[in-house]
Amino acid sequence: MAEKFVSERNLKFMLNEVFDVPSLLKYPRYADHSPEEFDMVLDTAMKLAKDTLKPCFTEMDRKPPELIDGKVKVHPMVRTILKQFGEGGWIAATADYEYGGQQLPDMISFASSFIFGAANYSGSVYPGLCSGAAHLITAFGSQDLVDTYVPKMYAGQWQGTMALTEPQAGSSLADITTTAIPAEQGYYKIKGQKIFISASEHDGVDNVVNLLLAKIKGAPAGVKGISLFVVPNKRIDEQGNLVFNDVNVTATYHKLGYRGSPINQLSLGDNDDCHGYLVGEPHKGLLPYMFQMMNESRIGVGTGAAAIASAAYYAALEYTKERPQGRPLDNKDPNSPQIPIINHADVKRMLLYQRAIIEGSLSLLFQCSKYADLRVVLTGPEQERVSLLLDLLTPVAKTYPSEMGVVSTSQALQCLGGYGYCEEFPIEQHYRDARIHPIHEGTTAIQGITVLGRNVTMKNGQAFKLYLEEVAKVIDQAGKDEILKPYSQQLAKALEKLQAVTDHLLGLAMQGNPELFLADATLYIELFGIIAVAWQWLLQALTVRKALAGGPLEADANFYQGKMFTFRFFFAYELPKIEGLATRLLNSDGLTLEMKEEYFAD
Amino acid sequence: MAEKFVSERNLKFMLNEVFDVPSLLKYPRYADHSPEEFDMVLDTAMKLAKDTLKPCFTEMDRKPPELIDGKVKVHPMVRTILKQFGEGGWIAATADYEYGGQQLPDMISFASSFIFGAANYSGSVYPGLCSGAAHLITAFGSQDLVDTYVPKMYAGQWQGTMALTEPQAGSSLADITTTAIPAEQGYYKIKGQKIFISASEHDGVDNVVNLLLAKIKGAPAGVKGISLFVVPNKRIDEQGNLVFNDVNVTATYHKLGYRGSPINQLSLGDNDDCHGYLVGEPHKGLLPYMFQMMNESRIGVGTGAAAIASAAYYAALEYTKERPQGRPLDNKDPNSPQIPIINHADVKRMLLYQRAIIEGSLSLLFQCSKYADLRVVLTGPEQERVSLLLDLLTPVAKTYPSEMGVVSTSQALQCLGGYGYCEEFPIEQHYRDARIHPIHEGTTAIQGITVLGRNVTMKNGQAFKLYLEEVAKVIDQAGKDEILKPYSQQLAKALEKLQAVTDHLLGLAMQGNPELFLADATLYIELFGIIAVAWQWLLQALTVRKALAGGPLEADANFYQGKMFTFRFFFAYELPKIEGLATRLLNSDGLTLEMKEEYFAD
Repeated sequence: MAEKFVSERNLKFMLNEVFDVPSLLKYPRYADHSPEEFDMVLDTAMKLAKDTLKPCFTEMDRKPPELIDGKVKVHPMVRTILKQFGEGGWIAATADYEYGGQQLPDMISFASSFIFGAANYSGSVYPGLCSGAAHLITAFGSQDLVDTYVPKMYAGQWQGTMALTEPQAGSSLADITTTAIPAEQGYYKIKGQKIFISASEHDGVDNVVNLLLAKIKGAPAGVKGISLFVVPNKRIDEQGNLVFNDVNVTATYHKLGYRGSPINQLSLGDNDDCHGYLVGEPHKGLLPYMFQMMNESRIGVGTGAAAIASAAYYAALEYTKERPQGRPLDNKDPNSPQIPIINHADVKRMLLYQRAIIEGSLSLLFQCSKYADLRVVLTGPEQERVSLLLDLLTPVAKTYPSEMGVVSTSQALQCLGGYGYCEEFPIEQHYRDARIHPIHEGTTAIQGITVLGRNVTMKNGQAFKLYLEEVAKVIDQAGKDEILKPYSQQLAKALEKLQAVTDHLLGLAMQGNPELFLADATLYIELFGIIAVAWQWLLQALTVRKALAGGPLEADANFYQGKMFTFRFFFAYELPKIEGLATRLLNSDGLTLEMKEEYFAD
Repeated sequence: MAEKFVSERNLKFMLNEVFDVPSLLKYPRYADHSPEEFDMVLDTAMKLAKDTLKPCFTEMDRKPPELIDGKVKVHPMVRTILKQFGEGGWIAATADYEYGGQQLPDMISFASSFIFGAANYSGSVYPGLCSGAAHLITAFGSQDLVDTYVPKMYAGQWQGTMALTEPQAGSSLADITTTAIPAEQGYYKIKGQKIFISASEHDGVDNVVNLLLAKIKGAPAGVKGISLFVVPNKRIDEQGNLVFNDVNVTATYHKLGYRGSPINQLSLGDNDDCHGYLVGEPHKGLLPYMFQMMNESRIGVGTGAAAIASAAYYAALEYTKERPQGRPLDNKDPNSPQIPIINHADVKRMLLYQRAIIEGSLSLLFQCSKYADLRVVLTGPEQERVSLLLDLLTPVAKTYPSEMGVVSTSQALQCLGGYGYCEEFPIEQHYRDARIHPIHEGTTAIQGITVLGRNVTMKNGQAFKLYLEEVAKVIDQAGKDEILKPYSQQLAKALEKLQAVTDHLLGLAMQGNPELFLADATLYIELFGIIAVAWQWLLQALTVRKALAGGPLEADANFYQGKMFTFRFFFAYELPKIEGLATRLLNSDGLTLEMKEEYFAD
């Protein structure tokens, strides 16, 4: 089993050199912390990942959850994981002091999540879900809800979930039919079906708290009639005991990967006795409430995707250094010894590819985390600015790592040849685990429609304009560095292409043709993502150039040289992919709209 | 479970309309056959696929082979499959009459293999391996070897294998160390280890016949010292009994997919009693002998890859027609009924993508089959021509379907959203099965080096020149059709780009820089493959235009319209991908060569 799964050096490079996390300490919210503490948090996260999460990575896959008599049995380590995460303060890390949190910056919490996801993605999901669900209650719930549920969730004793999807309402949340009927005692009676609900029942906790979307009887049709409820699997009766709340698990799915975490089908209110507690006001359940958790989860998915790719990459790297096979192409002597395959150009290409994807994705996610950190401490137009940038980039920071993480993990597998395909090595599991990400928390198609159909146009295109400015700033800075100048120019051209494509597509929208406008939104988010990651690579290269100018130590010099090669790789191999995408996106011939179902007949 | 897994209509379109299989009947080798018989063969193949292979598709995955006391236990259906394939004449289908074959054209046998692979890829491998191994014996083995082994293999009673890979010799066959020491009685004593040998021991047959590479003691180093042996797991003693031949199974691999077929590790001659029988002359084992089976197998891998993608596609198509979700983008009424997702542009895009990959790959593979058919009946320069074209295209016909088949299957999975990720639907298995293809029978990197480093330059570039002529012919024909003219021009430009890239890379080779020349060979074969498949799509479009001009029946008209849309899709969405690839390939900056191992340190 490969030892290394993340680069701590790279995380510290991102935090301290690129995104300057200590710069947050000037804000009162973060003023109690220090750079040394941030380092210590990461070290502790690494220890937790190595000692608790990684050892059960394979076993949680091989012994997936089982549904037995309506109860879901998970791996015994799940309870340990939640306990340790709760006691270590990881679940509440970014929460306000008043809720028992530590007010750590999102960047630090994000770096820890990345470490946890790389060690054992399934294992990392349980505390992650507790965190997101508890944040949602603290943001919009009553004091009573906060007091009852949040401390238990932050302690890892009760599991949090997000319960959105229904059999007839997957991508189309407007169509949920779970109903909530007000009871006299202040609660609502819930009735309906939910599917694909992660961790929504398991024996690693004493209770599960579902943050659930339902429609109050008589509510308007569509998304405007959706309300948010806390629906625990066990409710507290008048004597303070936990009693069955008529939440019934009807199935647990058997999945390709991500098998350490149960995804269940729930039937609520079979006996007309499922109590739900309204969060905030009626009809605001999806927008704005659940969108907060969804956006947080989308960043979480991007993080998990990059993390899995990271673990697969280090397993591949270790193998390619050790595996002798073949000789340099100009050596024709069959008696000379074989060389480790890391010396072959194509193997280095595959490794650089993975690094370019992983560290580029990571940078984009750190960028989003920084916006999230600033959003809670800035005010007025400055806050509006980071808030818009975060909203704009969230679907991209979900989708790029998710889609490219699958390819990156596949390239890691390829580095091992036949062994990569075997269960004796960890990469086949990473490959299976990775495939969930383009699906959950909104498929890639949904993210594409969100970024092009909603975010690029929101507030009169303000977010998109701000984004272009942000990228232009980095282009300008890099243009002043002799070595980076050609890359700066390449990115400037790419950005022009993004603008041209966007203008072209918005033109179609203006002509009142929403179908044509959004027909290739999936390609648009791909184009957008490549350019966003190129921006992040140029930003990293700027940092590296500064560091190299300072005359670093040898180990550091190797790290920075590796960064420069990976940066150059992205611009040489990945950024040119926008050419073909732009060609297609500028050619709105309506091909897929004209294609008829009956033409698929044979 | 999805019903449909291949389009019979499309196979007949390929065979009769595009590649004109009846045109082969004029050659004496095929003269006994008729178009009606060809149709009947396909109908029988469909019946065998539906009745025997498909019903055990899932179960063979869920109950994979087990190694028990040195014996490999496979699913009981394996014996039935081999028996039916043997009795039905499928294993010997293309073999000469003198060996009990039917002298069917390769195109017909290929179409059948495609059907079998789509129904159950693992199940289809057993008879496929028997076929390839038996062909190798008939081509180069003594009459005695032919008489002893071939009839049993064609009958499906004895399994054939190809035993090449060793622990220290995966992609580098030059480094095999299995030895063969001549014994006085005419056989050789074999000693060594083989790994990743498909079907090399199982209880679905009475014996296994390994076509095995080894080095005769004292042979030259490298590939020039490799000889080919028949090494049965059980040999025939003087009394005519089958006795243990000291072939020991030391492990059977647990794999991501392709789990219905055992891949074993063999230890030969542990007791110094493993007999091997030399095939042909010493030292010609790899080149030319095993290359025949390898090239046949590479086409087989391409076929299997396209077949799996086909099965996944039809499962996705069925789902998208039945699954209601969402509404047209211009319909804002949440009370209106949801529509089947096949009506969404992005879903149609994903379906068209899959069709474009599958039917484009299929066409390229049919093209290769036709060359294979002509190679055995033509003579002189005409034979040389098809032979060179087949050699040139074989790595492409292996790699394009293998690489793109993985992506296509992934898109099929995506069409089902969360359900695609669940074992209750077949696509997650297709997704796992598909991933073997870029690895076995030579990884994609090896194929890239073969096509660029060997095939493009062989015989003074003659094969490549012939290929350009073949594509140019189709470009010329299409240029005369008003509708196809723009596509013809697009392909002409793409072909120029291929030539420019090839000239550029060959220039580096001439400058004596083999490492730089081949550094991006994987990207080169990707570029080559996209253009080759565009050529095949234009060829199909020409056929469709002719058919549409004839005023087809309605069902046929829908089929042809679907073809035209898929053809247009390939030119609009896939062919532009060569732009980014060419940009990179023309920029030989030596990035991956300069990257040092120590830069991967952190």
